Amino acid sequence: MMNSTKIKLYDLAASEDDRRPSPYCWRARLALLHKGLAFETMPWRFTEKETIAFSGQGRVPVIIDGEQVVYDSWAIAQYLEEKYPEYPSLFGGEVGKSLSRFVTNWVEVLLVPEIVRMIITDIYAHIHEKDKEYFRTTREKFFGATLEAIPHDRDQRVITFRQSLTPLRKTLQQQPFLSGETPAWADYVVFSTFQWSRSVSPFPLLETNDPVFSWRDRLLDAFDGEARKVLAYQS
Amino acid sequence: MMNSTKIKLYDLAASEDDRRPSPYCWRARLALLHKGLAFETMPWRFTEKETIAFSGQGRVPVIIDGEQVVYDSWAIAQYLEEKYPEYPSLFGGEVGKSLSRFVTNWVEVLLVPEIVRMIITDIYAHIHEKDKEYFRTTREKFFGATLEAIPHDRDQRVITFRQSLTPLRKTLQQQPFLSGETPAWADYVVFSTFQWSRSVSPFPLLETNDPVFSWRDRLLDAFDGEARKVLAYQS
Repeated sequence: MMNSTKIKLYDLAASEDDRRPSPYCWRARLALLHKGLAFETMPWRFTEKETIAFSGQGRVPVIIDGEQVVYDSWAIAQYLEEKYPEYPSLFGGEVGKSLSRFVTNWVEVLLVPEIVRMIITDIYAHIHEKDKEYFRTTREKFFGATLEAIPHDRDQRVITFRQSLTPLRKTLQQQPFLSGETPAWADYVVFSTFQWSRSVSPFPLLETNDPVFSWRDRLLDAFDGEARKVLAYQS
Repeated sequence: MMNSTKIKLYDLAASEDDRRPSPYCWRARLALLHKGLAFETMPWRFTEKETIAFSGQGRVPVIIDGEQVVYDSWAIAQYLEEKYPEYPSLFGGEVGKSLSRFVTNWVEVLLVPEIVRMIITDIYAHIHEKDKEYFRTTREKFFGATLEAIPHDRDQRVITFRQSLTPLRKTLQQQPFLSGETPAWADYVVFSTFQWSRSVSPFPLLETNDPVFSWRDRLLDAFDGEARKVLAYQS
């Protein structure tokens, strides 16, 4: 570890501290693990805006590395890549970084909005009591529906969702990870989305015979099973 | 140019030799241009299977580089990258190559099948007379419909198609090319799909105020406007 003091990662926590249901925080956490940097996670809840006010904004992940404060998972990945170039690369160079951005956008546009519709009541069930009113109000306003109404069609929706993973599935039939023989940022971005879901929801997004399922399993085993150790469902 | 004899590229031609309507051949052609290698294209038609029988299969692109015969656009890109490593890289390393494969799969799964439905009668109108029966028979069997019936809903279909480009669009709002500051394989794969369409069809897949349109324009200008020089529509 070349970082002498541990990096602090402000990480969204559920009602239990050990359940960490933010896809963006998982990205940052896996980036830190990939770089092999010493860090500790600070459980944080939606309503604790003042706790991270020092970052000049109100969302996690936020990291503190010595004097440096960085927020936003993509900014954190770039920061770590530039600050610690001698550690394993998250992007594998400029083309890899640029295409990682495309993968990140693909996840943002296709995966996150679809998954949130399917698991939103499961998220609600697991967030801290003091976050519930905030969560319900903001999300019901966004979707124009009650939380409970949003996932009513998820059994149909998941079929289309699985089909939308075809480009990922094809790639994982050709190589073990999205980034090649070993995982890197693009893998973590996609994986974090599934990790978010299994953190709070028993609903199976993937079928067990799907190459995407096997790939997710390999990432659950990565870094001494760090993503498997936290509280989550076997979904 | 380090290749002393010109590489030969067997390239699908339309009824006119100068109209080159294959997305896969454009990928190979742009890869050769990117590497700065000397090459000549050999116009080829669907029914001329015997002309490329030496390759052990019946589809283009096929390249001959000295003693070496390579077919399939992805195999050609890999071959050129390995054979000419001192020339500009198509992938920018292993992560870039692996993620380029994801982009290639994204194009195969999302773009190609959608575009073919919208422009199939335009393709038919432009292919060589001797290819028409072969094309009609194989495609009508595949789609289970007459050629003329397939694109009937393209005015609606193109709206969904443009929406499906959102991950690409977002990326091109963040950086000039999919591969970063300069184009590389992933750009050529996506571009070739649009080049295929404009080679034969006046139907506008993109709106002129779309960042994807501007990016396509930059690639039409690349390599001294090589892709702009061929016979095509202003679509």
